[in-house]
Amino acid sequence: MTKKAKVNAAILIIGNEILSGRTQDTNTSTLAIWLNSIGVKVEEVRVVPDIETTIIETLNTLRTTYNYVFTTGGIGPTHDDITAQSVSKAFGVNYEMHKEAFKILEDYYAPGEFNTGRQKMTWMPRDANLIYNPTSGAPGFNIQNVFCLPGVPSILKSMLGGLKNKIIGGKPIKSLTISLRTVESEIADSLTKVQNENLDVEIGSYPFFHAGKLGVSIVMRSEDQTKIDICNSQILKFVDKKKIKVVDR
Amino acid sequence: MTKKAKVNAAILIIGNEILSGRTQDTNTSTLAIWLNSIGVKVEEVRVVPDIETTIIETLNTLRTTYNYVFTTGGIGPTHDDITAQSVSKAFGVNYEMHKEAFKILEDYYAPGEFNTGRQKMTWMPRDANLIYNPTSGAPGFNIQNVFCLPGVPSILKSMLGGLKNKIIGGKPIKSLTISLRTVESEIADSLTKVQNENLDVEIGSYPFFHAGKLGVSIVMRSEDQTKIDICNSQILKFVDKKKIKVVDR
Repeated sequence: MTKKAKVNAAILIIGNEILSGRTQDTNTSTLAIWLNSIGVKVEEVRVVPDIETTIIETLNTLRTTYNYVFTTGGIGPTHDDITAQSVSKAFGVNYEMHKEAFKILEDYYAPGEFNTGRQKMTWMPRDANLIYNPTSGAPGFNIQNVFCLPGVPSILKSMLGGLKNKIIGGKPIKSLTISLRTVESEIADSLTKVQNENLDVEIGSYPFFHAGKLGVSIVMRSEDQTKIDICNSQILKFVDKKKIKVVDR
Repeated sequence: MTKKAKVNAAILIIGNEILSGRTQDTNTSTLAIWLNSIGVKVEEVRVVPDIETTIIETLNTLRTTYNYVFTTGGIGPTHDDITAQSVSKAFGVNYEMHKEAFKILEDYYAPGEFNTGRQKMTWMPRDANLIYNPTSGAPGFNIQNVFCLPGVPSILKSMLGGLKNKIIGGKPIKSLTISLRTVESEIADSLTKVQNENLDVEIGSYPFFHAGKLGVSIVMRSEDQTKIDICNSQILKFVDKKKIKVVDR
């Protein structure tokens, strides 16, 4: 299979608990790092509440804009878990019991334990592909370019391995970070010049405060390692000239 | 001033570092909890890259949809800080030096230290109101219903106090959490019934794993404490009937 030059994705986080501030989302970072490693660049994240019309509308926008969409949250057994039915409606397909998912959970639970709440987790869009869950049984699912994962970070993480072959990424995005003992305003002009001369490298500048000392991390990102290296040497040149200490590279 | 029944907001997080997974956003949670406390409900969060057209388009959607929009990130001195110029374009106003901001930073820095990088931080939409920064000098700004804050979490936090009188919230959103020694599927049906009988209370169900034990936290949210209390007593009723242990309330 030929790799496309650029493959992008959006993440759709479904859950009132993120919007209320009760829960700190960590899935964005997990997914973004993993997707980068297989050549998929996350270009947008949206967090929406557990409201069916909002989920449907947002998903339909994202899935027609990006190569892939990853949803997190809302696939459990309770009344506020409405991702599967919303995704079914977004695609205009039936929301129904998935036989293989039913078999998996029937085997997973002890006799008599596979109650209606748990059975709800086997309902998904018709003909969805399962995303296996090595942690807690209940699978996620995939329909076309949309992949629906759970909200619990440890369970989500455990499911990514099984996903890898379903995603066709582009060239992996490479990145190089150098950390300087300086402040942003000291290097802003020089960095702007380097950015303007290296338009294929995305250069980010991030101040940090660590162990009582201020510093700035410069992050260079590109699919092309050579271009990163050229960019890096230009930065080191002005850093050297300004007598700024490199604390980490 | 009469308080509106419902006041909502969106958060717009600007920064490649969140989308790449390098930086874990924590500002959403900080802002959401603070906004809840002054009666503003966050209904959507979007994370976008440092691309001017994307920032403009997204901001124009959000500011015409919600009562307030809070942006984080992109107001520093480097080339990738393009929030102020993007917001100016979104509102169709001039991007120019703000005299009061200039005076603040001129006083803040030692003579000769107020270089062009630092001066860039005084450029903002014409007639913007300043949001003072007790931590590092450089102010944020407000134009109409849009409030632009920095990305560094500790600095953002220190600026919220000065914002309070600029935001007119509705009734504060109250919340009550009870944590149960059970799993979601055991209570899903009963909880659905309680939710259907208490439509003014938003009931969330969140599994947790703590100190080697599984549990579920039930979160009830409403502007009306009485309605939360009624809801809570109905939940405790079925919890008691099912002989489920309440581990925290």
